[in-house]
Amino acid sequence: MLALAAHPLGHQVVVLGPSADDPAMAVAKGIVAPFDDEAAIDALSDQVDVVTYEFENVPTAAIARIEQRVPVRPPRIAIEIGADRLAEKTLFRTLGIETAPYRAVDDANDLEVAVSVLGLPALLKTRKLGYDGKGQRLLRTDADVGGAFASLGSVPCILESVVRFDRELSIIGARGLDGSVVTYDVVENQHESGILHITRCPARGVPAPALAAAHSAIEGILARLDYVGVLAVELFLVGDRVLANEIAPRVHNSGHHTIEGAETSQFENHIRAITGAALGSTRTIGATVMVNLVGRLPDLTKILAIPNAHVHVYGKPPYAARKLGHITLRGRDEAEAAQHLPAVLALEGWTL
Amino acid sequence: MLALAAHPLGHQVVVLGPSADDPAMAVAKGIVAPFDDEAAIDALSDQVDVVTYEFENVPTAAIARIEQRVPVRPPRIAIEIGADRLAEKTLFRTLGIETAPYRAVDDANDLEVAVSVLGLPALLKTRKLGYDGKGQRLLRTDADVGGAFASLGSVPCILESVVRFDRELSIIGARGLDGSVVTYDVVENQHESGILHITRCPARGVPAPALAAAHSAIEGILARLDYVGVLAVELFLVGDRVLANEIAPRVHNSGHHTIEGAETSQFENHIRAITGAALGSTRTIGATVMVNLVGRLPDLTKILAIPNAHVHVYGKPPYAARKLGHITLRGRDEAEAAQHLPAVLALEGWTL
Repeated sequence: MLALAAHPLGHQVVVLGPSADDPAMAVAKGIVAPFDDEAAIDALSDQVDVVTYEFENVPTAAIARIEQRVPVRPPRIAIEIGADRLAEKTLFRTLGIETAPYRAVDDANDLEVAVSVLGLPALLKTRKLGYDGKGQRLLRTDADVGGAFASLGSVPCILESVVRFDRELSIIGARGLDGSVVTYDVVENQHESGILHITRCPARGVPAPALAAAHSAIEGILARLDYVGVLAVELFLVGDRVLANEIAPRVHNSGHHTIEGAETSQFENHIRAITGAALGSTRTIGATVMVNLVGRLPDLTKILAIPNAHVHVYGKPPYAARKLGHITLRGRDEAEAAQHLPAVLALEGWTL
Repeated sequence: MLALAAHPLGHQVVVLGPSADDPAMAVAKGIVAPFDDEAAIDALSDQVDVVTYEFENVPTAAIARIEQRVPVRPPRIAIEIGADRLAEKTLFRTLGIETAPYRAVDDANDLEVAVSVLGLPALLKTRKLGYDGKGQRLLRTDADVGGAFASLGSVPCILESVVRFDRELSIIGARGLDGSVVTYDVVENQHESGILHITRCPARGVPAPALAAAHSAIEGILARLDYVGVLAVELFLVGDRVLANEIAPRVHNSGHHTIEGAETSQFENHIRAITGAALGSTRTIGATVMVNLVGRLPDLTKILAIPNAHVHVYGKPPYAARKLGHITLRGRDEAEAAQHLPAVLALEGWTL
């Protein structure tokens, strides 16, 4: 989707990825190699003016190597912080952004202490390599505490209070090379088994102070990291407060609706940002409901028969729990956008 | 733009064109060969399920050859009629669609007769191979009549009365494989030196009977040709009537605004039609003003600084009078869409 957004702006795109099946290979010049292949990394660097990533688990050593030759945007520090739940939470706290109560857990004893301070239920999460609900364990009762640290591999963790939230939200913003910032309307997310299922834009019934806190949070993070590109912040709505959960230093699944649902898509604004262009308007167009297609694709002919359904298939080989595409329903308002949601949900192809 | 629309629907695209610089080559698998290269045509046919074209001057022999192996949509008859101004006018008349008065001119004597019947001023146009104002001559006075037929190569022509029109309009529609038809809002076009310069959607101040006649005209043509895909009809507004000028059996420059300005773009609806999918909603989104970039590209960084400007660069090597891209300004209404039009016009790069 980044490559599709880059072409109309007059850019040429070269993609480095580990498989010839990577979707971007069909719409860009491809270099098929692992992310740590130094010759491939150098070949990429030699062909382009700027490098970006759409996946934050790229080895930071690879990024450091590219930085020797061409700029990498967003900055590596954003990946490093986003990949470490403790650093991420510390960033939030430093900026005065509220979070759920948490404590660092470096060994089994730390866990005992953290449980006694925070109480249960709580979530034990590895500090690194966790996404889409992986690398975490819910501790409901004291009986769950004993083997928990070992079961996650005895690696550095954090323990986080389980917050009773009203709704899961996210906010997407972009910062340009000149420091200018734009933010999209706050959206509302529904997860299934830890994977994003539905995003609604705009989010329904969020109190004004919570919206203001969300915008202020992302603006603070973008400025602090001297960020360039699109960034997402996942949030919990609790009353009229928001608690920051995590950041994603890239275009984000909860921003896919912006292709139809905003004046300028997150993909185009990311390309604009990293190429030093002005950012486009983020104004919401009508209302949208985005549904992820996970595990297997539904019968697309039936989806296309819904007049306001927009199909985005990624061309990825399918396997269970893999995001293979998404559908965006757009309407003049929330009711019209959601009108055919039941039909989409009846057809969609989740295999978890 | 067709390839960019096809990918998200899950299709793979193979393009045949005479130059490795053809814009689609960057976003599809390419076969670089002239349109009459039989081996290349066969190679294309062997790799795909359906063939379409975005340029009506493809040799019909090539299309006939492809048809032996895979379906070609839209049908060849549409190219043949669209490429012959007399056949085109005859089609309009057969369907009860009004046109400017015209007469066939097969020799210099026919021209004398036609001038005496239609009067002057009148346009002498070659029946074939004319577009963007090429292959035609304006006859203002009797002095212009003498050498006119010879000056166009002594080929079959038509003479057409010069109509005093209020506005140039066009309408775009699509017909699916199942015969269903959708039409977009009528748009208003402004030409410079025979090349489309500005399209406004919706068209301003068109009387309801004229809008109805436009929709009815394209619906009649789509049905009569058993058409599959997107078709455009160029029209003159005269009072509350419309006169059909010509058809284009393809996605059309006056439909480029549909990328931002309609629920489903003309490019996506063309792909949906030729692949047998349901057609998407053509509902207008706000209002749009599309400006062609012709001959040379302007400073795009300045265009991108206009918040509601959408840039589409085709990646074509520039030369005078070549369409290199377009800009679409979108707003909630016509006034908002057109607000920054003066800034775009000040920057754009026409070289004619």
